[in-house]
Amino acid sequence: MPDKVLIYSRLPKSLTQRFADRFELLDSGGKPSHEVFPADEVARIRALITAGGTPLGAVDMDRLPALGAIVCYGTGYDGVDLKAAAARNIAVAHSPGANAAAVADVAVMLMLASTRRLMVADAYVRDGGWASAKPSPLMKPPPSLAGCKVGVYGMGEIGRKIAARVAVFETEIGYFSRTRYDDLPYQYFPSLEALAEWCTVLMIAVRASTETTHVVNAGLLKRLGPDGHVVNISRGSVIDERALLAALQDGTIAGAGLDVFETEPHAPDELTMLPNVVVTPHIGGNTREAHVAMQACVVANLTAFFAGEPMPHPVK
Amino acid sequence: MPDKVLIYSRLPKSLTQRFADRFELLDSGGKPSHEVFPADEVARIRALITAGGTPLGAVDMDRLPALGAIVCYGTGYDGVDLKAAAARNIAVAHSPGANAAAVADVAVMLMLASTRRLMVADAYVRDGGWASAKPSPLMKPPPSLAGCKVGVYGMGEIGRKIAARVAVFETEIGYFSRTRYDDLPYQYFPSLEALAEWCTVLMIAVRASTETTHVVNAGLLKRLGPDGHVVNISRGSVIDERALLAALQDGTIAGAGLDVFETEPHAPDELTMLPNVVVTPHIGGNTREAHVAMQACVVANLTAFFAGEPMPHPVK
Repeated sequence: MPDKVLIYSRLPKSLTQRFADRFELLDSGGKPSHEVFPADEVARIRALITAGGTPLGAVDMDRLPALGAIVCYGTGYDGVDLKAAAARNIAVAHSPGANAAAVADVAVMLMLASTRRLMVADAYVRDGGWASAKPSPLMKPPPSLAGCKVGVYGMGEIGRKIAARVAVFETEIGYFSRTRYDDLPYQYFPSLEALAEWCTVLMIAVRASTETTHVVNAGLLKRLGPDGHVVNISRGSVIDERALLAALQDGTIAGAGLDVFETEPHAPDELTMLPNVVVTPHIGGNTREAHVAMQACVVANLTAFFAGEPMPHPVK
Repeated sequence: MPDKVLIYSRLPKSLTQRFADRFELLDSGGKPSHEVFPADEVARIRALITAGGTPLGAVDMDRLPALGAIVCYGTGYDGVDLKAAAARNIAVAHSPGANAAAVADVAVMLMLASTRRLMVADAYVRDGGWASAKPSPLMKPPPSLAGCKVGVYGMGEIGRKIAARVAVFETEIGYFSRTRYDDLPYQYFPSLEALAEWCTVLMIAVRASTETTHVVNAGLLKRLGPDGHVVNISRGSVIDERALLAALQDGTIAGAGLDVFETEPHAPDELTMLPNVVVTPHIGGNTREAHVAMQACVVANLTAFFAGEPMPHPVK
């Protein structure tokens, strides 16, 4: 009989199919499992698969008394209360690096789309503005990327891939992260404030935690200046979304490219009404190959767990 | 008295301002100059500024009997009949390389936007599809760029900058151009057909001429296959637009990113109605710095011409 695994977050069937070949899945469709499954079934659940951003705290863990493994689909694990898991002897694992290239690609796409005003340009063609030579202040030439100072916040696997990609656009790269890396050819800044003061485009690639909540606030955005752009492919919690909205509305910065939001799957209407934002529905890791790689990590973690061995991709 | 220069194409005033500081401009707003200016004025015009794609043939030259210099704003000169100019002893100059980085940036933006389906993704957020978990076949995971075979057609300054940028996305690069370059680390293909057979994403960076008209046709698009994408930042004439439309409609290829069109400033409605295209209004070289660099070339060319010296950036 196959081992049983709870699907804790709402995940599309197309993504869990590969797990169903190996395990018996209890899919609650994102609802609390005790509302969906009988109590004795819930009491026997030893492992679950979750999206790293989904809240999973002490109370949730206590409802699953047999739980021994939390396996995050993707690299993030910010929704998981790691202390609560450790206190209950629950191992936590994830899929590190499996989607890094795919996420970095989206970061660069959003950077280019924001700095070259792709959404406005595409609409200018589709709506006939170009054909009728309609004056459009938003079609004025923007600054070149060549020579632009780009700041990368966070230098994990995704941050490194973003920096490598952005450097080839003839930009200058600076970064801030808790650790200074001597192997990197980029200028290090001792604080996020110093980085924002220096750069025009800020790429957010930091691993989200309680410490990073709203660190990109009104004061920080002001440092980027009126030609400034913010790109976020990390977690929505890193940006104070109200402050970003105000900065985009009053010209404190020029634009933003956002793949993540504070309350997903919702992006505020006031934000998506603006012409100077480009938004995507958390698709950073959403490529065929990235899913295959992430799923391979999930299967490897679960297989090891049920065999009584340490999971190969633990959260450190 | 300043020298007089005809503005031959329709160019926004914001772009010609810098020329007005040095020369007396006769701006016909894109209309034939003999319809706008008195015959004796037209007869004295010795130099003109044109957008390289604007048709300028023998008949047009014969209407300007004193013409000695055709100066193209930008790198392109495909609209200028070079043989007719040579026969009349008219020198032709342009702005080589001045906008290469800016154009290559747009090419990469369109490649990322097409392969990651940015237009669909942005609309999915803005229209509420994401918030309501509306099923969308177009939001299925696309292939990763990492490992993807990208073909670059044309290896001038812009083609080289495109290849350098695309390579950092962990792709394989192949190219076709009239010349094989031993200094390039990319695979050379002896024909456009062979390149298209090999690659999935085709980046068009060739200098347009009568020989390149409609070389990207139905047969060539078929070689790219159902995951294929076409990006064009060169000239609209290179692609058979009807064939491209059909290939996008019936799934022969997956998508296209287009900055240029056969009949600018018009993009066919059938094309812009499709969800699997991303379109921009010929903004490749449209950055502040690229315009400054192109204008500097134009001024240098005209200044030399009126001083009786060879223009520094001649078309070879």
